[in-house]
Amino acid sequence: MRVSAQVAEEIIATAAELADAAREATLMHFRRGDLTADTKESERFDPVTVADRLSEERMRAILKRRRPADGILGEEFGREEGTSGLTWVLDPIDGTRGYLSGTPTWGVLISVRDAEGPIYGLIDQPYIRERFEGGLGRAEVNGPSGRAALRCRGARPLSEAILFSTFPEVGTAEEGAAFRRVVPKTRLTRYGTDCYGYALIAAGMIDLVIEAGLQAYDVQAPIAVIEAAGGIVTDWEGRPCHEGGRVLAAANPAVHAEALALLRG
Amino acid sequence: MRVSAQVAEEIIATAAELADAAREATLMHFRRGDLTADTKESERFDPVTVADRLSEERMRAILKRRRPADGILGEEFGREEGTSGLTWVLDPIDGTRGYLSGTPTWGVLISVRDAEGPIYGLIDQPYIRERFEGGLGRAEVNGPSGRAALRCRGARPLSEAILFSTFPEVGTAEEGAAFRRVVPKTRLTRYGTDCYGYALIAAGMIDLVIEAGLQAYDVQAPIAVIEAAGGIVTDWEGRPCHEGGRVLAAANPAVHAEALALLRG
Repeated sequence: MRVSAQVAEEIIATAAELADAAREATLMHFRRGDLTADTKESERFDPVTVADRLSEERMRAILKRRRPADGILGEEFGREEGTSGLTWVLDPIDGTRGYLSGTPTWGVLISVRDAEGPIYGLIDQPYIRERFEGGLGRAEVNGPSGRAALRCRGARPLSEAILFSTFPEVGTAEEGAAFRRVVPKTRLTRYGTDCYGYALIAAGMIDLVIEAGLQAYDVQAPIAVIEAAGGIVTDWEGRPCHEGGRVLAAANPAVHAEALALLRG
Repeated sequence: MRVSAQVAEEIIATAAELADAAREATLMHFRRGDLTADTKESERFDPVTVADRLSEERMRAILKRRRPADGILGEEFGREEGTSGLTWVLDPIDGTRGYLSGTPTWGVLISVRDAEGPIYGLIDQPYIRERFEGGLGRAEVNGPSGRAALRCRGARPLSEAILFSTFPEVGTAEEGAAFRRVVPKTRLTRYGTDCYGYALIAAGMIDLVIEAGLQAYDVQAPIAVIEAAGGIVTDWEGRPCHEGGRVLAAANPAVHAEALALLRG
C-alpha cells in the first residue's frame, strides 16, 4: 500500500509522539526498584511490568486520538481492527528481562504495517535517549551523539562477521543446534542485546542477528529499520518473517546467504 | 593507607579529569567505521583500537601533570612505578569487543590503589554519558537521569538472583564447569555486558557477576565501586581478587556465599 506524502508525514509525527510517551512511561519505573514482575508462563521467565502496560496504554491513547481509523496490535493489550488498511504494531518494552536488570539495551518498538508487512519502524532506547528510525524515506538515528544516517555494513565473509543474539539458548533444541552451526563460523558472537542488536545492524556496526520464537511485535520495527538502512531480514528459509518466528537479520545479502545456508543445515 | 581529605579530594578531581579525557578520546572513534583492530593473541579475538591507546595516552599525560609521584598501571602501556604509595590502575576501554560492535556496555575503568588494594574506582560509559563512582566516601552514579546514590540490593535467595557474565564460555573448561553450576540456580543469567554488569550490581539492579581470566585493571575499579555501594567482590575461594583472575562480585554477603559454595563445587 503506497501512502501519500501527507500520510507518511503524519505517521512519522505520530510515531515520534508515541515514542516520546513510551520513553517517559518506561523511564518512570526504570531502575527504581519498585517493579512488580508477573510471570506469563510457568516455564519461562517473562516478566511484565507496570511500565510495560503503562507504556502501551499511553501509546494506544495517542493513536485513538490521532489515527482512529488505523488498527493496533500490541504486546500487552492485543489486537484492535482498523479500517484504513494500516496497523500500528507496538512492543512497549522489548527485552523486559533486560529492563528489570537495568541494562541499556531493551527498547520500545513501534511500527506501521500494511497488508504486505511493515512500511515504517522505530526502535527507541529511552535511557540512552536514542532513537533509530527507518521507512517512508527515513533511515536515521538520533541520540547522544546527535543525528546520523543509518547504513548497514558492506559485505564481508561470515568469518569476519559479528553475530548477536539475546541468549545462547536460541529457541527449541533443533533451533539451537542450527544457531550453533553459525556461531563458530563468525568472527565474534555476542549475547544479551535484546532489540538493540537490530539497531546495531542498521547503524553499520554488526552483521547478523539470529533469533527464534519471536512475535510480530518483536520483529516488525526492526525489519523496517534494517531494510531502510540497506539490510535484509527473513526467516531461516529466506521467506518474509514479519509475523514472527525464526528471524535472520543481516547487514547485506551476501552475509545473509552465508548464514542462511548454515541455518538450513 | 589512609589518605587525607585533601588528597582524597585531589584523587576524585583527577579521576574526573581522566574520565572526561577518556570519554572524549573513546567517542572520537566510537561507531565511526574507521577502527583498526589488532589481535594480541592468535587464539583469542582481542582487538586493540586506536581509541584504546589514545584514551590511555591522554590519561597518562594528565597524571604526569597532576599526580607525578603516583604510579600507573595501564592495560595498553604497562607499569610505571611511583613514590607516593598510590597507583592509578587504568583500563582505557574495558570491553573492546563490545566497543567494536557498537554496544553501550563497554567502559573506561579508573582506580587508585594502595598496597592493600583499590581505595577508589570509577566506571564510565562514554556513549551514555554515565559515570559510576565509589570509594573515598563516594558511592554515586551520574548519568542521563541525573545523579543518584549507589546501593546494592538486599539479600535474596540465589533462586531470585540475577547473574551477569560477558560470555557463556567463562574461562577454562574447569572454570566454565564451575560457572555452569551456578547458572541454573539463578532466576536469570544474562551475557554481554562487559564492565557494565559491575555497575548494575552497584546500582542495585542485579545480584552477581562471575568472570574468570581477568587482569588487575579489569577488576580494581569495579571492586571499589561495588564495595562502596555495600557489595562484596572476591575470587572463587573468597579471597581478595584485586590482582585479577577469577572474580565473584555480589550485591551482598548472603548471595555471595550461595554462589561461592557452588563455584567451589
